[in-house]
Amino acid sequence: MMTNTQADKLFADRLAETARLVEAELGRHLDDRQRDHEIARPARLMAAMRHGALGGGKRLRPFLLIETAGLFGVSAAAALPAAAAIELIHCYSLIHDDLPSMDNDDLRRGQPTVHRAFDEATAILAGDGLLTLAFEVLAEPASSPDPAIRAELVLALARASGLAGMVGGQMLDLEAEGRFAEVRRTAPPWPGDVRRLQAMKTGALLAAAVDMGAVLGKASRGQRLSLSTFGQSLGACFQVADDILDVEASAEAMGKATAKDADAGKATLVAAIGLEAARQERDRLSADAAGALRRFGPEADILRVAARFAAERTS
Amino acid sequence: MMTNTQADKLFADRLAETARLVEAELGRHLDDRQRDHEIARPARLMAAMRHGALGGGKRLRPFLLIETAGLFGVSAAAALPAAAAIELIHCYSLIHDDLPSMDNDDLRRGQPTVHRAFDEATAILAGDGLLTLAFEVLAEPASSPDPAIRAELVLALARASGLAGMVGGQMLDLEAEGRFAEVRRTAPPWPGDVRRLQAMKTGALLAAAVDMGAVLGKASRGQRLSLSTFGQSLGACFQVADDILDVEASAEAMGKATAKDADAGKATLVAAIGLEAARQERDRLSADAAGALRRFGPEADILRVAARFAAERTS
Repeated sequence: MMTNTQADKLFADRLAETARLVEAELGRHLDDRQRDHEIARPARLMAAMRHGALGGGKRLRPFLLIETAGLFGVSAAAALPAAAAIELIHCYSLIHDDLPSMDNDDLRRGQPTVHRAFDEATAILAGDGLLTLAFEVLAEPASSPDPAIRAELVLALARASGLAGMVGGQMLDLEAEGRFAEVRRTAPPWPGDVRRLQAMKTGALLAAAVDMGAVLGKASRGQRLSLSTFGQSLGACFQVADDILDVEASAEAMGKATAKDADAGKATLVAAIGLEAARQERDRLSADAAGALRRFGPEADILRVAARFAAERTS
Repeated sequence: MMTNTQADKLFADRLAETARLVEAELGRHLDDRQRDHEIARPARLMAAMRHGALGGGKRLRPFLLIETAGLFGVSAAAALPAAAAIELIHCYSLIHDDLPSMDNDDLRRGQPTVHRAFDEATAILAGDGLLTLAFEVLAEPASSPDPAIRAELVLALARASGLAGMVGGQMLDLEAEGRFAEVRRTAPPWPGDVRRLQAMKTGALLAAAVDMGAVLGKASRGQRLSLSTFGQSLGACFQVADDILDVEASAEAMGKATAKDADAGKATLVAAIGLEAARQERDRLSADAAGALRRFGPEADILRVAARFAAERTS
């Protein structure tokens, strides 16, 4: 049994190693010289796609996909195309979410957002291009020699990232801001609404990372169900922890004991149920995630650390 | 042998029948009551997606896909999911192209564009949702019982609609407008640049419709190559004919014999090579398309009419 410190070190090393692999794989897909296409791609669009996809991020979704596939003996190299595909979806969603008509953000990870570094039209097309490339990468033989697995990966990723998943969740988030309502909502949001929004906006893609790993590993029905519970609990835990971090950071900055009132009207779980109840929910979800791994042996330890990390992370 | 009048009647009937089938299929995919999902989809987003996808259009891409698959004995019903998928891509591209930061259009087919009927953020998400749904539909078993075919359909559609296809072509079109240049171009565009732009922006998806039909029909390598020539010639012909129509319409409206000068700086083939040479290219492309069908028997007559229609259409 590893100590927590040893486990944390292993987790950090594996996360960093995955990030390096994913960066190289994404770079390869976004480089004309390394792709065998008859038609050269427009340079400005390619540059914008590279700006939005390369050079940053924890690459948490690829990490979850690769580690889950690894449970079944699939190598990181074999899982890498699918890992890159899910990261392409994550990257496109950040570009579109940052747009002036959405969250209107100028910076991401200290760099100008794509529409600031280029322009709005180019940013929309860069997002569309990355979204489409994700499915191209999944459908290519390199993502799995078995076409049935390729088709199942496409299905899992599309369901998690579309109307019933990530895109739908972003829509609910805009609605929760009161953007389309006649009057802005002032009462706290309903907990059930927040949980649904978060399950769709961020949970679905995190859960899909785990599910796609299970698909690549040809998990049995029972194993896939357990991993689905793991992925959904982890995704929810990650998002509640994010809400709590936001409040703690602003509480520190603003010298308030609790930011519940300040956040009323924002669709966070802290706003919905309060800070203390949110902390309990976060820890319960982390325990649920770890519990779902019970049927797996020590080879799932790294995913157990991920469940702890989701709750304990400080950034 | 049919007369041209009989053939035109058959073509119009089949096109209308396909449009009815596709409308119903798209409606089914954009209706919570008819889909088995645990999570209900956000109503506003669903409404925007329906606004952008239903109620109009010639449905030319689904028609080409269904008729090509029909060459190999695949029923229209069996080809319908793939036909709906390619139309979803076409519809998403119209929504995003109409956005204020792109072509800034208020009307499409006499109706408010999606960002006018709803708002810009909703229109971006509706486009993202339709794009993602296209791949979900293709990856579902209903699109083909054979997962290898499903994966190949995904690959063909993704390649035609991404960076090296439709999305890249839209980028080139914005660049050709001089939008990102220091000085606006005043000389006519290079013919090769226009042909490349058009092959990507509209040709690739029309050719993909034919190619996906060939994939569904399990066409031999030789058959698929002939159909690829047909699809590419048809797509190019369609676009040149469009350029010519634009000029003839504006020539009529403006009382000019030729609109070549008026169009200098616009990336059309008429601007690049002049009206008469463009007409010759259109007719040659139509003949090329028909010629590529030589190996197929009378069952390809409807596609032959399509090749003639692409050149002769008046709207």
